[in-house]
Amino acid sequence: MNYLTYLPVWDKLNKSQQDTLKNSAVKRKFKKTEILHNESADCTGLILVISGQLRAFTISDDGREITMYRLFERDICLFSASCIMNSIQFDITIAAEKDSEVLVIPSEVYKSIMEVSAPLANYTNEVMASRFSDVMWLIDQVMWKSFDKRLAEFILNESNIEGTDILKITHETIGNHLGNPREVVTRMLKYFVNERLILLSRGTIEIIDKVGLEKITE
Amino acid sequence: MNYLTYLPVWDKLNKSQQDTLKNSAVKRKFKKTEILHNESADCTGLILVISGQLRAFTISDDGREITMYRLFERDICLFSASCIMNSIQFDITIAAEKDSEVLVIPSEVYKSIMEVSAPLANYTNEVMASRFSDVMWLIDQVMWKSFDKRLAEFILNESNIEGTDILKITHETIGNHLGNPREVVTRMLKYFVNERLILLSRGTIEIIDKVGLEKITE
Repeated sequence: MNYLTYLPVWDKLNKSQQDTLKNSAVKRKFKKTEILHNESADCTGLILVISGQLRAFTISDDGREITMYRLFERDICLFSASCIMNSIQFDITIAAEKDSEVLVIPSEVYKSIMEVSAPLANYTNEVMASRFSDVMWLIDQVMWKSFDKRLAEFILNESNIEGTDILKITHETIGNHLGNPREVVTRMLKYFVNERLILLSRGTIEIIDKVGLEKITE
Repeated sequence: MNYLTYLPVWDKLNKSQQDTLKNSAVKRKFKKTEILHNESADCTGLILVISGQLRAFTISDDGREITMYRLFERDICLFSASCIMNSIQFDITIAAEKDSEVLVIPSEVYKSIMEVSAPLANYTNEVMASRFSDVMWLIDQVMWKSFDKRLAEFILNESNIEGTDILKITHETIGNHLGNPREVVTRMLKYFVNERLILLSRGTIEIIDKVGLEKITE
């Protein structure tokens, strides 16, 4: 199985470029919680997810983490290969959230093809723009508007009020309480699900990590 | 004068691509504080700065602004042309900070060339990576670590202690006080200069907007 066909532009590469990628890419397995790439590592290579789930995050000086984005099957991570571009002047850490299998493409190989292939360069642009959008959303909602705090507080309050960890409430109602559109509530609740703080099912929100929610409100 | 030569990859475009760009780019002038592009505008086009200074920022629901990055002579702004990529899913506002002259390149023209030109696509990648790095720095320093608060507090305290708005102190010393490397202090001080809160000269920091600094510490 050639997992490189997961690249949407695979068919737009010529035979020689395809062969170069095939001969250099290496399959690797990572256990849940294992670190694939850390901030100090220079250039691990591009990571193409075959199966499992990865998390990209930064770590503060005092050890706090913040999730920038997640990577699922067929997703590719550029920032584990920051040396492919001079202008990538930041570092992230990537860890396996589930047992994962990935394909690592050496940075210099990818770079050499990207420099001559408009399709690969444009695909790389789209990947970066997509991550950029994730991060802008994070700035907007989590950091700047502190909507995460307000939502966590609201959930904890409701739980206290109702005397249960399973809340029967719609996203729309929460939005009305907090003055935010329903979609914003839904997106942040999904973020909480990813952070394993709550579970969502039709019409209910179940708190599974009260301490985690309380930490957010601090 | 052909300002399109400000594009570092100009010479790597073919004659027909160069002509297409030349014939479509439009020179425009903006007065200080004028808005070039706002969040609701769909696709103003790529903005290449000929002279002056622009600021890219987002606005919260309650009207607060945060500067994402600044654009100087020869800089180009992609995000005023978000339609060139499907994956750009966020909006920014761009305003002139000084009287500015810019070249607006229509999005569809730029896109059509980028799709076939590896040099232009790779240049676009570098521009995006550079802005991404700015934003990651902002997350890291301003929002997450709240270093802006700590630094503003420190400057105000020192000013109170010394009884003057002109502080004689090195960036290194401040770094030692706050437990941050000198470069981080310098970078944040320059951010404060850009925000017109302080003036920097050799060995001194002059507070020019005390209220602004106090707002940051809130």
